[in-house]
Amino acid sequence: MDINNLLAFAKGRGFFWQSAEIYGGTAGLYDYGHMGALLKRRFETAWLAYFVDTNDSYHLIEGTSVLPERPLVASGHAARFNDVIVGCTKCRTYYRADALLADIGIKVSEGASAAEIDEAVAKNGVKCPKCGAPLSNAKPFNMMMDLYLGPEKSDKAYLRPETAQSSYLNFYREFNILRKSLPFGLAIIGRAYRNEISPRQGLYRMRELTQAELQIFFDPDAWKVDLDAVRQHTVEVVRYGKSEIETKSIGDLVSDGVPGFYAFHMAMIDSFYKNVLGVPKGRLRFLEKGGDEKAFYNKVHMDIEVNVESWGGFKEVGGLHYRGDYDLTSHSKGSSQDLAVNIDGKRVLPHVLELSFGVDRNVWMLLDVFLTGNSDRRTLGIKPYLAPYNVAVFALQHDDGLLRTANAIRAELKRHFKVWSDDSGSIGKRYARVDEIGVPFAITVDFDTIGNDTQNSGTVTVRSRDDRSQTRIPIKELTGYLYGAIRFDPYKAFEGFG
Amino acid sequence: MDINNLLAFAKGRGFFWQSAEIYGGTAGLYDYGHMGALLKRRFETAWLAYFVDTNDSYHLIEGTSVLPERPLVASGHAARFNDVIVGCTKCRTYYRADALLADIGIKVSEGASAAEIDEAVAKNGVKCPKCGAPLSNAKPFNMMMDLYLGPEKSDKAYLRPETAQSSYLNFYREFNILRKSLPFGLAIIGRAYRNEISPRQGLYRMRELTQAELQIFFDPDAWKVDLDAVRQHTVEVVRYGKSEIETKSIGDLVSDGVPGFYAFHMAMIDSFYKNVLGVPKGRLRFLEKGGDEKAFYNKVHMDIEVNVESWGGFKEVGGLHYRGDYDLTSHSKGSSQDLAVNIDGKRVLPHVLELSFGVDRNVWMLLDVFLTGNSDRRTLGIKPYLAPYNVAVFALQHDDGLLRTANAIRAELKRHFKVWSDDSGSIGKRYARVDEIGVPFAITVDFDTIGNDTQNSGTVTVRSRDDRSQTRIPIKELTGYLYGAIRFDPYKAFEGFG
Repeated sequence: MDINNLLAFAKGRGFFWQSAEIYGGTAGLYDYGHMGALLKRRFETAWLAYFVDTNDSYHLIEGTSVLPERPLVASGHAARFNDVIVGCTKCRTYYRADALLADIGIKVSEGASAAEIDEAVAKNGVKCPKCGAPLSNAKPFNMMMDLYLGPEKSDKAYLRPETAQSSYLNFYREFNILRKSLPFGLAIIGRAYRNEISPRQGLYRMRELTQAELQIFFDPDAWKVDLDAVRQHTVEVVRYGKSEIETKSIGDLVSDGVPGFYAFHMAMIDSFYKNVLGVPKGRLRFLEKGGDEKAFYNKVHMDIEVNVESWGGFKEVGGLHYRGDYDLTSHSKGSSQDLAVNIDGKRVLPHVLELSFGVDRNVWMLLDVFLTGNSDRRTLGIKPYLAPYNVAVFALQHDDGLLRTANAIRAELKRHFKVWSDDSGSIGKRYARVDEIGVPFAITVDFDTIGNDTQNSGTVTVRSRDDRSQTRIPIKELTGYLYGAIRFDPYKAFEGFG
Repeated sequence: MDINNLLAFAKGRGFFWQSAEIYGGTAGLYDYGHMGALLKRRFETAWLAYFVDTNDSYHLIEGTSVLPERPLVASGHAARFNDVIVGCTKCRTYYRADALLADIGIKVSEGASAAEIDEAVAKNGVKCPKCGAPLSNAKPFNMMMDLYLGPEKSDKAYLRPETAQSSYLNFYREFNILRKSLPFGLAIIGRAYRNEISPRQGLYRMRELTQAELQIFFDPDAWKVDLDAVRQHTVEVVRYGKSEIETKSIGDLVSDGVPGFYAFHMAMIDSFYKNVLGVPKGRLRFLEKGGDEKAFYNKVHMDIEVNVESWGGFKEVGGLHYRGDYDLTSHSKGSSQDLAVNIDGKRVLPHVLELSFGVDRNVWMLLDVFLTGNSDRRTLGIKPYLAPYNVAVFALQHDDGLLRTANAIRAELKRHFKVWSDDSGSIGKRYARVDEIGVPFAITVDFDTIGNDTQNSGTVTVRSRDDRSQTRIPIKELTGYLYGAIRFDPYKAFEGFG
């Protein structure tokens, strides 16, 4: 599927579309309809169960998206959270400089300065792609959205550009409320805001996005991970300075100098994509960044990329960042509060390992990877626990007896599952409709179900979305059957959970 | 508990505190710690299960909090979402005029104009409570937070002041994707933003808040609710123009002129507070607003109020608003798109019934209502399915055999529940710690559990938070026992679900 096909599907089936679209919409702002909101929640729930709830020392918190100015000055965002932009001298269209150049085949590094951009523009004679006029000098543009609080609108504030900051700001209090031991983790699923110049590619580059981020605070001298459990685990990775994907075992990566705790989490993330989300092997890779490409404070920085057809290849859906002590050092300075902690009499300023995921990008990716078929007949072959609706219940025909039984089954199943009900159209059309939105099981009440005289009375057919097989199951066993088929057990998804 | 006691408890136990508090915090911005985030999610999950998932025609969606300017001009917020403020001519402190006057015992209506405020200030000789200097003339102050998008920061946008607008903006598309029938509902749980002049009373008046709102779109000529199911249900209500609380049956309210669909939802909300949240009878009331106090477009408007000791009495935690066709009319005009729909050949511009809840206020209310005892020994006697942690597991003593069994039980229970683990301190202290954070059941592994020779081998004690009773339960029955004790069934909570 290309971007437009995927957007059209998402719009037609209730997944997502531009915010305020009756007013023409705004680039980079998307709302989730009923189906998309469910899918997004399923992703978030699985992420939380896997990355956070499996560890007694990791906790979900919530922080405001409005933050006062000082912490974002201290974090460096006020000075450095910039994109370099160029504008057309005639039609006044603005472009993200690196994206503009990339579109015409000129590669500059992600952190290229305004001067480097000007040089590339001059050297290649780049003009405005819209009207052909010359471009203005490149300049840095801060991507944070600022606003002003108070009756005189005098208190400058920002919408947070990443959820991570809320975790750093809460680290010290949480550490002291909790077990006062390291490592410990703070996770946030929440909104972040970026004044993107060229929002595009659907949910890829958005002005308001949802992030799921876990910050693990640890003592770099003392963090022991169960490396033996994952030593044989292999991942696909493009090391910094190389151009091809290599398949590497965690053991080999550690031998090559990747810190053990970092490599362990590569296996954890790899297992999440393969075993929890079901992304086929070969479609996920880690892309190591170095030099100008990575944030200067990151000691190790890899993007998590999935090969997404509608985005034209491997694209970033998350990142694994060893941020050193940059964050707590910055906020110690900025707040004049020593954020170091006392561990068994030793003063420790914790380092941070960040696991960062763009929720919207992952939702888009799931549709791209798991939608198969063509526009006449699509199937969303997503894992059962990620499907917006868990189960569909149909009466075979519009018959009072069938409907009564179907409704009784629905009433019971709705106590446990998200149930899709549909009694209109042929049964084949109804199966097609639920395949398209990924419902993994469809239950049909037929005349055998309500008859007294066959071995099938009191049973229904359960049709599987994936292999179209139909099995007869007694009504009273349905709840247990579905729990067994739909339940997600994070502990089975990663060998490192031990 | 007074406000400061409650805030201190919330801060010390991981519920909530000011955002960026290491930088001194900002009035009206609060973060949720690990315990508060869990409690908030439990409330949201119960709200969703009860109000939304019980109806096949109601759906959860998500909308951006950044909205372009035009819809908020159309909705009237740009012109009219104002508080009247007065400032001190000397120390430049600003006040919400109605709150300032109320604090010194002068009552003005919620919708009082600047002229009315000036009159009350002059008549009563009101001065700045901080420095005693005269006050400036009152003026309206728009409470929306504005910001600017795009490379020239030229595109004005607002942070939505209520989640409801996202539902109105998505109504037409959702109606056409879905069953194309009325009534149908769109629910949002999300953030809203208000530039409050005097944020105060903890989570009562915030600058960034979470709302849980359900907008029900319906044909006023055709909506049939099951009034017979709730006719005998009684609620406490202060009718407009009266000063005392009356206990009224739904049947009587309808006879008194309250629309049937409206009265039905009063019973639904009443049952939510009593049966789902467990708020004792007498602490909940509906306060009807009329005249200048209500939004002019509301045909019927009642605040939902709970008697909250730390707020000094009955305070608003939600509202039930019959908004007529104001919203779809406004957005039809503003967007130049006819948002009327076709129902069986008839053109219908749906009316809206809004069920609106302040999530933060309800979280605060739950702590206020359900915390008992004194600072030495507190119990959070909240419903089991609302408790942040479902169950605690303790080894009686620091003994290898006990710990091994306790850990095995934890590993199993963590697959189903949020489990609190604690092996330090006396068992009595550990019980006290979990009582305080509302854990409804505490499992203790003792020597009988791991012994072979007694009738109690293989069993643990399950202690109830509420009556301190202890029951021995076989380990293998724990999961089932806890599911039975903790599970929330919304259908049993309201007779109107039928």
